[in-house]
Amino acid sequence: MNTPGTILNPVERLQVALADDMTAVNALIRERMASEHAPRIPEVTAHLVEAGGKRLRPLLTLAAARLCGYEGVDHVKLAATVEFIHTATLLHDDVVDESDRRRGRPTANLLWDNKSSVLVGDYLFARSFQLMVETGSLRALHILSDAAAVIAEGEVLQLASAESLATTEPVYLQVIRGKTAALFAAASEVGPVIAGADDAVAAAMRAYGDALGISFQIADDLLDYGGASAALGKNTGDDFRERKMTMPVIRAIAAADANAAAEERAFWVRVIEKGDQREGDLDTALDLMRRHGTLESTRATAYDYAARARAALEAVPAGRLRDILNDLADFVVARLS
Amino acid sequence: MNTPGTILNPVERLQVALADDMTAVNALIRERMASEHAPRIPEVTAHLVEAGGKRLRPLLTLAAARLCGYEGVDHVKLAATVEFIHTATLLHDDVVDESDRRRGRPTANLLWDNKSSVLVGDYLFARSFQLMVETGSLRALHILSDAAAVIAEGEVLQLASAESLATTEPVYLQVIRGKTAALFAAASEVGPVIAGADDAVAAAMRAYGDALGISFQIADDLLDYGGASAALGKNTGDDFRERKMTMPVIRAIAAADANAAAEERAFWVRVIEKGDQREGDLDTALDLMRRHGTLESTRATAYDYAARARAALEAVPAGRLRDILNDLADFVVARLS
Repeated sequence: MNTPGTILNPVERLQVALADDMTAVNALIRERMASEHAPRIPEVTAHLVEAGGKRLRPLLTLAAARLCGYEGVDHVKLAATVEFIHTATLLHDDVVDESDRRRGRPTANLLWDNKSSVLVGDYLFARSFQLMVETGSLRALHILSDAAAVIAEGEVLQLASAESLATTEPVYLQVIRGKTAALFAAASEVGPVIAGADDAVAAAMRAYGDALGISFQIADDLLDYGGASAALGKNTGDDFRERKMTMPVIRAIAAADANAAAEERAFWVRVIEKGDQREGDLDTALDLMRRHGTLESTRATAYDYAARARAALEAVPAGRLRDILNDLADFVVARLS
Repeated sequence: MNTPGTILNPVERLQVALADDMTAVNALIRERMASEHAPRIPEVTAHLVEAGGKRLRPLLTLAAARLCGYEGVDHVKLAATVEFIHTATLLHDDVVDESDRRRGRPTANLLWDNKSSVLVGDYLFARSFQLMVETGSLRALHILSDAAAVIAEGEVLQLASAESLATTEPVYLQVIRGKTAALFAAASEVGPVIAGADDAVAAAMRAYGDALGISFQIADDLLDYGGASAALGKNTGDDFRERKMTMPVIRAIAAADANAAAEERAFWVRVIEKGDQREGDLDTALDLMRRHGTLESTRATAYDYAARARAALEAVPAGRLRDILNDLADFVVARLS
């Protein structure tokens, strides 16, 4: 409960402004998650769907529809669709390989076996698909099916580019589009579409969602190295240990190559490509990043995308919801300052 | 190559009758399988999609559209959709669990790791979804999205009911609907739908596909015990070793219970529920099935569904394609005689 006078963050403000709609979304999610024949399904999904996530994606859909003056009910279906796609993606991300286990990494699917994660994820994809078909909006169907393809493609791309020093910044951007921005963009675009808003408004909301998602994901990846100040904590260093090619690393390697620093390149080859990591390697990586200013430049890029998100909003109808979305773009990078 | 005078089976006759359409379907599949960003995708799918499968499901869609006089091009998209859904399902079936490996079962994903199977399967689902959206037929979208949900639900149900003696025949039927009949039914129904045929014709083709799929799957499950004659060969006994509750086993257990044969029940509890299988157990299982006539009765049920499939065809336009579909219903059970 928020006591009077508590300052709410933009996500919480969206939750308050769209409380009735979100109640309807949550009821629809529970209803469609159920399975007449396979009671295991809600069991598997409950901990994901019910566990009080921020519901940022469905909030984007609801806000985008409402700020265009939408008064119907299909935005609730599309919001539930978006959350189902997100949840299905999480379940499929949980699938682990023998090779992962062999590397001794913590497995993500401690609660459920691989097969359950895959099949229940498929069920949620199918349910999301049924939901969006019910809206009868072919344009929304186009947008969401395209997003589903970009998401899956991005995941495969991430798999193929992991642990490879050849991963470039454009590849990284495509990966995080699939991982985060594609669904943010689609969630934001289907709101105006279902509301029958002008194409320019739909395009602006899509641009907002895309830039917001990219900003959000770059910030996340930077925080895994402790942010621009490289303040390490208990939630840092995972990407390094998992040998992920995120923006701070990609830029550090590019800087090493630009300076013909053979020793630095050898370091990255050893820790990322060969996976031969030793005590103190994370500190060395951070030293290299600081030396080349890649943590700072990564932060600047995250802020740049947040600014693009805000700029996109200029083309959408003014009002309280637009104000909150504007603040939301600041909020996703505020974690970095 | 078939020399003149060679007698073709009904699947081959469909392939000949619909050769031009299938060429278009195959070209579309290759085109949509490609990925600009993730070249690994066609690598993973090629061995499944290219490897000269019978393409029975897309043939059903093409035949159903053509026999309704369809002259457009969307049946090709729907046929490719159906094949993509089928291929995605195969990829996801390949995902194995630690527990499966521990039981020493052969793993299905020898070529690709779990994560690739899942993510590339997701990509094919998304691509199939894009393809059907392109047809603009909301009715076809309804039919195929409902089928996708039944398929996923059936897979979860199979997982939950495996190795459980409590699995009843209605549960088994629901499982094989998900496994086979739901996609056969949807593939058959979208043909008349895209052709703008009468509702009665669409319903009849759906009934045909459903009964054909059930007949096909019961026959498959029976053949795993060597057919009605229990003639064991190198391709038999897998379901028994994997402790699957298929129709011959379900009926043998029901017969044991009806006769209050405590020893027989104890046998099934040991080999199916506990998985404690010893030399000679498969022979004992077959003896019990013969004693209770469950192999014969399973064959009779498969023939019954084949007859239902033929009966459904009476309501669809007569012609060469209907004749072949009629023979196809005989063909799927002919393996049992």
